[in-house]
Amino acid sequence: MADRIHGIFTPHLVPLDGAGRIHETELRRYVDWLIDRGVHGLYPNGSTGEFIRFAPEERRQIVRIVCEQASGRVPVLAGAAEANVRETVAACEAYRGFGARAVAIVSPFYYRLGPESVYAYFREIALHSPLDVTLYNIPMFASPIDLPTIRRLAELERVVGIKDSSGDLAFMMRMIAAIRPYRPDFSFLTGWEAVLVPMLLIGADGGTHATSGVVPELTRKLFDLTKAGQLEEAIRLQYRLLELFDAMLYSADFPEGFRAAVELRGFDLGHSRQPLSPIQVANREELQRLLRCLLADFGYVEPPPEGCPTRPPDLEQVRLNQIVGDVLEELRHRS
Amino acid sequence: MADRIHGIFTPHLVPLDGAGRIHETELRRYVDWLIDRGVHGLYPNGSTGEFIRFAPEERRQIVRIVCEQASGRVPVLAGAAEANVRETVAACEAYRGFGARAVAIVSPFYYRLGPESVYAYFREIALHSPLDVTLYNIPMFASPIDLPTIRRLAELERVVGIKDSSGDLAFMMRMIAAIRPYRPDFSFLTGWEAVLVPMLLIGADGGTHATSGVVPELTRKLFDLTKAGQLEEAIRLQYRLLELFDAMLYSADFPEGFRAAVELRGFDLGHSRQPLSPIQVANREELQRLLRCLLADFGYVEPPPEGCPTRPPDLEQVRLNQIVGDVLEELRHRS
Amino acid sequence: MADRIHGIFTPHLVPLDGAGRIHETELRRYVDWLIDRGVHGLYPNGSTGEFIRFAPEERRQIVRIVCEQASGRVPVLAGAAEANVRETVAACEAYRGFGARAVAIVSPFYYRLGPESVYAYFREIALHSPLDVTLYNIPMFASPIDLPTIRRLAELERVVGIKDSSGDLAFMMRMIAAIRPYRPDFSFLTGWEAVLVPMLLIGADGGTHATSGVVPELTRKLFDLTKAGQLEEAIRLQYRLLELFDAMLYSADFPEGFRAAVELRGFDLGHSRQPLSPIQVANREELQRLLRCLLADFGYVEPPPEGCPTRPPDLEQVRLNQIVGDVLEELRHRS
Amino acid sequence: MADRIHGIFTPHLVPLDGAGRIHETELRRYVDWLIDRGVHGLYPNGSTGEFIRFAPEERRQIVRIVCEQASGRVPVLAGAAEANVRETVAACEAYRGFGARAVAIVSPFYYRLGPESVYAYFREIALHSPLDVTLYNIPMFASPIDLPTIRRLAELERVVGIKDSSGDLAFMMRMIAAIRPYRPDFSFLTGWEAVLVPMLLIGADGGTHATSGVVPELTRKLFDLTKAGQLEEAIRLQYRLLELFDAMLYSADFPEGFRAAVELRGFDLGHSRQPLSPIQVANREELQRLLRCLLADFGYVEPPPEGCPTRPPDLEQVRLNQIVGDVLEELRHRS
Repeated sequence: MADRIHGIFTPHLVPLDGAGRIHETELRRYVDWLIDRGVHGLYPNGSTGEFIRFAPEERRQIVRIVCEQASGRVPVLAGAAEANVRETVAACEAYRGFGARAVAIVSPFYYRLGPESVYAYFREIALHSPLDVTLYNIPMFASPIDLPTIRRLAELERVVGIKDSSGDLAFMMRMIAAIRPYRPDFSFLTGWEAVLVPMLLIGADGGTHATSGVVPELTRKLFDLTKAGQLEEAIRLQYRLLELFDAMLYSADFPEGFRAAVELRGFDLGHSRQPLSPIQVANREELQRLLRCLLADFGYVEPPPEGCPTRPPDLEQVRLNQIVGDVLEELRHRS
Repeated sequence: MADRIHGIFTPHLVPLDGAGRIHETELRRYVDWLIDRGVHGLYPNGSTGEFIRFAPEERRQIVRIVCEQASGRVPVLAGAAEANVRETVAACEAYRGFGARAVAIVSPFYYRLGPESVYAYFREIALHSPLDVTLYNIPMFASPIDLPTIRRLAELERVVGIKDSSGDLAFMMRMIAAIRPYRPDFSFLTGWEAVLVPMLLIGADGGTHATSGVVPELTRKLFDLTKAGQLEEAIRLQYRLLELFDAMLYSADFPEGFRAAVELRGFDLGHSRQPLSPIQVANREELQRLLRCLLADFGYVEPPPEGCPTRPPDLEQVRLNQIVGDVLEELRHRS
Repeated sequence: MADRIHGIFTPHLVPLDGAGRIHETELRRYVDWLIDRGVHGLYPNGSTGEFIRFAPEERRQIVRIVCEQASGRVPVLAGAAEANVRETVAACEAYRGFGARAVAIVSPFYYRLGPESVYAYFREIALHSPLDVTLYNIPMFASPIDLPTIRRLAELERVVGIKDSSGDLAFMMRMIAAIRPYRPDFSFLTGWEAVLVPMLLIGADGGTHATSGVVPELTRKLFDLTKAGQLEEAIRLQYRLLELFDAMLYSADFPEGFRAAVELRGFDLGHSRQPLSPIQVANREELQRLLRCLLADFGYVEPPPEGCPTRPPDLEQVRLNQIVGDVLEELRHRS
Repeated sequence: MADRIHGIFTPHLVPLDGAGRIHETELRRYVDWLIDRGVHGLYPNGSTGEFIRFAPEERRQIVRIVCEQASGRVPVLAGAAEANVRETVAACEAYRGFGARAVAIVSPFYYRLGPESVYAYFREIALHSPLDVTLYNIPMFASPIDLPTIRRLAELERVVGIKDSSGDLAFMMRMIAAIRPYRPDFSFLTGWEAVLVPMLLIGADGGTHATSGVVPELTRKLFDLTKAGQLEEAIRLQYRLLELFDAMLYSADFPEGFRAAVELRGFDLGHSRQPLSPIQVANREELQRLLRCLLADFGYVEPPPEGCPTRPPDLEQVRLNQIVGDVLEELRHRS
């Protein structure tokens, strides 16, 4: 597995300054902070990074800054989708110059294209990209990349992996079963951290997780615990990460909940380029109070002065004993 | 109704040259041809116009060329959505300079945003745009604009209309019932020419129809016949337009079927920026043979040398007599 | 068109007594009331009639009562879908004995079956049914019947029509274009009264409308006005029917809003077999207040003692002048 | 966990005789065969059992036969949904008499009901059922039971579990996190065997799996291996079960692929009550050839005389080494 892209890659947000421009020093500070807390790689211009809300030259600027600041400490997987194949290939060339390890290309969006179009699009890019290409499948936002198409694309040497954000465990297994025997170097990454531990267990190589931009320590720990076979603790933490993930994902239009959380970790991200209505501003404040409590539970931040709602006293203990009890008791006995 | 944006606006394709760049002379020739054949207005940078596959500066170039060439003969409704509110407002300013009548802004896409975000987005643009704004609702590609949100947005003076591509007649009626009493200047355009005549009958002001870039004479005729109360002929032609529309829409990934048809009308559009697979190239040729026959039926092009499949001999007559017979016989008697 | 099933068929609710059993005398009174107010036919065991919440023998009882009471004054189109083909055919035989004109068979539900299964299912029934069969397409509840399947089924003599509840006008046109030239006796009914007038205009033969169980006078009037070419008034009333339809459909889980409305017309329907929660009971009372006002506007019931909210004073006039103004002014001039 | 319903329950098909009636002796033989091969329980009248294609009295007959034949060797979870609450409660009473352990009630189908209706429906049944009730959530076929509704229903003592067929691992975790701390006796069963092992790992109690009616030995083994912490082998077999599951599920309209497979295990199931078209009959034969090869791979049946396509020679080995390699190597080292 040495050669496969693997581990936790952070599709990070981009701090903006008071004028709404890229806040370079804060971005560099954020990159350092993420690397220090153990993420395996960085993923600029992802969906969490709001790639679509930046101008083409800004997307280049972001990748340049991130590559410079990472400075070889961790690999950079750069989102490189532009308006068309030609522009995308030009971005790939620029990103090679910046030192990116590979590019990630989201499937064509806006139009819902069929499999033949999706294939033709990625093929054209793969044939001309000077960097390795990972496919990015996110059916809720972009044209789906179906299994036969993935199989066809895996025949191209330049295509070295896929990030799938569907969260469908069986689909991940189908991809792995179809491709790994023939392409042992092909990487399978999940974009749905709600089920990160099970995904790793069935053979995924890692993931690109918005949550790792908020709690890099925790996502890294999930990865390490799973790899070390410490499933009891891994699954216990997976349940807690799910609670945090759901709060960030379902309490605001994506990725605003993640922005609200990263702020609590001490970064000034500025205002999103997607304006908020007054109701949304109020909801965001309420969400931040909840998130502060969830993050304080992990010890990552101070709890709010007014305190947090008490959890059911025995919840943790109950979970430890019952949720994964039978399965893991057996494991404990064996080890 | 004098003040409302109305009639048939063409969301035209953009001819590309051999190098894949905007083919300016061919675009100008196409604009003239459309105006000569009676379209009421032009709509550059629409979904048919593949706005998303062009770079920002190319979108400006397209609107500049179209405004120049239209030269006041017909109004231009310019698609102006850019990466974010600031860029979009800058485009609006540029398009005012070019002489556009108004801008059309598609609802935020890629992310599926909720109503509050959709509202905040359009509100921010409407407050800063120097040109009138029409909302563009296309739920199959972009975040839906629901009825309460449309009602709220219609309170802003700058928002002067909506183009709805859902094809849902009842939804159009709900919009008209909710807004027209308070905003008699607000324009309702449909993007679904499959039901153009019924839409006009229940009160829509017109439409922006990809098909009008292929058969401008026919869409204009549908509009005029309906306005003139010649429903029998209007509905007969609506059936024939539906057959053509379906062939272009469902035989290839949008808008490739329309590109194939416009070529048959004598324009060199070049290759799409979305590459085609070999299978798609073959299917496209087959589609063009079918389209040639459909267009030849109208007398717009020569039939292919190998001839066309015979239609059921009495189909036209059957339709004329039976499809809309009872309803319209009565109308004939009255007039 | 003489031979085609046509006009407004009422998919009526079934009154229940205090013990939850079929309330025969009230059902007979309701049948008389509907016929007196002009519906062209009756449609027991439809979706509105909650066929799925009755036992097989109850469904037979309902058809028997309705046929007896109609007593040849209007045709009965009897919903006959049972657990499987054999039971369904047995029901068809029973309904022939009761005097039904034809049966309506909903596409297989629960499982989402593909086109081949849908075809095989209807074919088997059509080959054995002693009564004419109409297909019932309601994709939101049952396996969709797609266009090629409809075309294949229309080759069977016993299949004499389709009721389509999708509300998709273009789909209705596609069906009519594909089948009418070859089967002039085949009937096309819409189940979506929100667009009844446009459906009639493009050639539909009529509809089966839950709303006709509430305001039979109004649906009949819409039909007659359209047939008589009085489109201005037809469309004006279509807008008002839409308002009523939406209130009944979207304010409660179907068909409870229709039950609440029929009660206001003076019928004791008893409690639905689907229990209501306390919140739903309260919402239902609020809905009835709104419905009473809407029905009072038509003069069908007395307004509530506490009065109704004032409508915008000029709403009616505005609509009359503007919504369908241009189109219909022309028509007026011609006649 | 002693008290919770747990393990693998088989939602079995029902053999029919030449006249299309329940084939009692074959059903009894099938029940014995399943119990002998280790399933933990039986689940008559499930979706796989085509409950909707039987008459009410036939559903009773099926449960009676199965309870009699099981004769206390394994618990019976009886599907008891009838046309309405009253009929359903009557079925529950009958099933108690037959000796069923509990009933499973599918959420209301045909109509898509909202959460309040779903709640009111299950509450009414739970208050009157003489047997424990498990909820059955299958959003692709029936009204979804959302998380808040499940939480409310879990407050009723009679409601002792849920079977969820969505296959959504994160949703299962959300249910467990919300309910288990307060209802340690509440059972969580998955209906999606494609991810059985991961479901068990995150705390599910078992599943009701159509596949267990075809390869009861294999599903039982997956369960036992997981419980015993032998994850490497469990996941390896999960991949193989997925291949079989996909073949049965996606090659024919459900549950015909499962019927074709059970026949290969030596049972005469007769013809489905859903007729097959000639094309479907041919496809079914082709599917059986494929299934015979898959089942022969496990050693459950003889390979076909004409042989089976060779699998990639090292596929098994590759999978063993690479798919779950890193994770499980560590586990091996620990134990």
